Amino acid sequence: MTDQGKTLTNEAGGRERRVPVLDQGFIALEDWMGGDAAVVRGARICYQSTSKSPEADVRLIRSELRRKPSVNTIFEHAVMRWYVRCPIFVARQWMRHRICTFNEKSLRYCTAERSYYVPSGLPDIEAYRAHMEASFDLYERLVAEGWRKEQARAVLGTGVYTEFIWTVNAWSFMNWLSKRADKAAQWEHRQYALAAFRLWREVMPITAAAFAEEVWRPLAGEGEALV
Amino acid sequence: MTDQGKTLTNEAGGRERRVPVLDQGFIALEDWMGGDAAVVRGARICYQSTSKSPEADVRLIRSELRRKPSVNTIFEHAVMRWYVRCPIFVARQWMRHRICTFNEKSLRYCTAERSYYVPSGLPDIEAYRAHMEASFDLYERLVAEGWRKEQARAVLGTGVYTEFIWTVNAWSFMNWLSKRADKAAQWEHRQYALAAFRLWREVMPITAAAFAEEVWRPLAGEGEALV
Amino acid sequence: MTDQGKTLTNEAGGRERRVPVLDQGFIALEDWMGGDAAVVRGARICYQSTSKSPEADVRLIRSELRRKPSVNTIFEHAVMRWYVRCPIFVARQWMRHRICTFNEKSLRYCTAERSYYVPSGLPDIEAYRAHMEASFDLYERLVAEGWRKEQARAVLGTGVYTEFIWTVNAWSFMNWLSKRADKAAQWEHRQYALAAFRLWREVMPITAAAFAEEVWRPLAGEGEALV
Amino acid sequence: MTDQGKTLTNEAGGRERRVPVLDQGFIALEDWMGGDAAVVRGARICYQSTSKSPEADVRLIRSELRRKPSVNTIFEHAVMRWYVRCPIFVARQWMRHRICTFNEKSLRYCTAERSYYVPSGLPDIEAYRAHMEASFDLYERLVAEGWRKEQARAVLGTGVYTEFIWTVNAWSFMNWLSKRADKAAQWEHRQYALAAFRLWREVMPITAAAFAEEVWRPLAGEGEALV
Repeated sequence: MTDQGKTLTNEAGGRERRVPVLDQGFIALEDWMGGDAAVVRGARICYQSTSKSPEADVRLIRSELRRKPSVNTIFEHAVMRWYVRCPIFVARQWMRHRICTFNEKSLRYCTAERSYYVPSGLPDIEAYRAHMEASFDLYERLVAEGWRKEQARAVLGTGVYTEFIWTVNAWSFMNWLSKRADKAAQWEHRQYALAAFRLWREVMPITAAAFAEEVWRPLAGEGEALV
Repeated sequence: MTDQGKTLTNEAGGRERRVPVLDQGFIALEDWMGGDAAVVRGARICYQSTSKSPEADVRLIRSELRRKPSVNTIFEHAVMRWYVRCPIFVARQWMRHRICTFNEKSLRYCTAERSYYVPSGLPDIEAYRAHMEASFDLYERLVAEGWRKEQARAVLGTGVYTEFIWTVNAWSFMNWLSKRADKAAQWEHRQYALAAFRLWREVMPITAAAFAEEVWRPLAGEGEALV
Repeated sequence: MTDQGKTLTNEAGGRERRVPVLDQGFIALEDWMGGDAAVVRGARICYQSTSKSPEADVRLIRSELRRKPSVNTIFEHAVMRWYVRCPIFVARQWMRHRICTFNEKSLRYCTAERSYYVPSGLPDIEAYRAHMEASFDLYERLVAEGWRKEQARAVLGTGVYTEFIWTVNAWSFMNWLSKRADKAAQWEHRQYALAAFRLWREVMPITAAAFAEEVWRPLAGEGEALV
Repeated sequence: MTDQGKTLTNEAGGRERRVPVLDQGFIALEDWMGGDAAVVRGARICYQSTSKSPEADVRLIRSELRRKPSVNTIFEHAVMRWYVRCPIFVARQWMRHRICTFNEKSLRYCTAERSYYVPSGLPDIEAYRAHMEASFDLYERLVAEGWRKEQARAVLGTGVYTEFIWTVNAWSFMNWLSKRADKAAQWEHRQYALAAFRLWREVMPITAAAFAEEVWRPLAGEGEALV
């Protein structure tokens, strides 16, 4: 098992691997550490074993993901930093996850940018758009009249876009993935989860394939592929 | 050290200890465990010592809070459950704290209630009010026309009230308190922190007094009393 | 759903509910908060629903424990404090669990007590005993000759008993339980898990029964009852 | 700010940066992510600011570490994986830290290696050595006679060496450092903390210098340099 994936990603450049999600959002994998090799390292130190072949590593990772009860720590040595732009209502769900770190654009210090999510295929989109524009008009007027930005944001709907970075280990990431890629998740959040899965699969191909097979398929059923 | 505080609080009844905050919000201490006695228990098991007097317990707690580097675990055996109603923009800051548990009213499943924060002493309050009313009018219309509630909430501003319960240990609570009661915190969030401090002081009087003296005063300076 | 269980336990007194485990160990439930009622509170605030009957609460808790992916936060408002005496090799496994708080008797500050685990049904027990006694003899001699206690403990085997308190929420407790009551766990640790399950069942009967049915049985198979 | 540090370390090779500690132990920095640049990234996304000069980044990191109350999340995007060999009594203290991940050589599955810590400058070292050798003799005999390895380890003292990998973010690492490099820490643990500081300074020079100045010096006093 080599660090080949990492080299490839670094050549492509962090920000360039930005995938558009929804009408004005995106998700990007900014940096990562360890990858599949770190999972193997975590497992093999327990048993003081050495890798005999790439196939043995694949079998090891799959059997660890299938194991019940799980041994989650070995998946926590692989870490990723994501850069996300999404509606506030998606960010609010996202930030309920706790085994990870967020830093978000602050509307206490920054002026909100006129950018909001517009769903498609729904009635009355024009009334929606007009209201969102009116909320930015009012926001700007209140700030001009002396409201603090942190107070004026009260008029901005949760459909407004925000952005944040998210550092998360692979175990906690898989927990998020299994909840937010789930059919029961909100459709908008799910689009981020599916996009994140595809990016993740490039840097941790063995773990991602094992996750799809051993964790995702039993949850979602045959008809619901992850990709 | 006795569990007297607990008995008194239980007699008063959890929900009754609700303190109003802002125009339509509140904070309540719903349940708690351990109190000052749990802090002493945590410290004394390390040293296998026994309490010689109430004064010795007071000195112990104060010296532990003053100690640098800190020994935080002994404060984690005291746990509280709070019930909070606050604007979404306050809740968003609050839920960035991770060593604790939240469960919040869901706007995926529940219809939003027409209730929003109105600041005082600011210009253009009527335009603000009119906009917030219009956002609820539009929300209700969109839901009636077939938008999912989870999508229609995109038009509701972060000044709308939400509610949640919050279970947190005393160490993590003090971390929140020192950040959110701070002069640099948003004024609206600070009102919740100050109200929480007053309720907390009733059930953990020794730790609360030690916190005010050993942690808060060095941070805030003489002129900024906690209460 | 009432807090009846709590009253009963408190009447019995915390420390009295100490259950012997292994030859000289024990586990006791010292304090607890919330219980089954806190799980229901956590679930119902999300949906803003009210409890229609005790049977509805039982169904709610069972369905939440069965749900995949899980909604763990609602189980985190129930918190317990345990008091444990066990061999160091068991404590080392126990303290790998991180979503909880430990305070342990310190062998930096306290002199080790001559108390060690003796397994039964194994050959050469007398040689084992003689060695453990010799290690305490040497420990005491080294301390008398000026070794710091924290250094002299290097000669004490991991079969020596330690004691600690452990504050943990019900979700993290169930995670520990499913790993340490498992057939694959070390036998000695398993005895603590089984004893803890029985004590837990007295204060959170609905959640404990649901756990045995929905989590434990699928893991362990029919033949392996929890009790 | 560039990722120059990372390239240099990778050229040197992870395992090669192993520093001996105590008589038979070591600490190595196996992998790392983000570095000083990740701290700057975390801070600048909040304010949507851009770096004007390397000096501005240095000032930013120093002022963030000095700030009270602290904004710890920005330091959590920098992550490291360490490889450690130390006595069990040191590992037991280390693993009380919870915001991080450990995987340790398992004495359930692996046979213990005859390797133990021998302090220097203390009386009766030969009696100590003889006892440690005797404990391994007995361990091997018990295993040969049918004790499980997980039971036979009961005779091995906490001075026996273990090894583990440790993945930790820079904030949690600094917390460990301020506790374990402290004069009040056990001397043996302190040697690992001081060695780790020196390795860390190579990959996060700006944050390490700011830590030494803003966090360490106020704790330790002028006379106690970190290096």
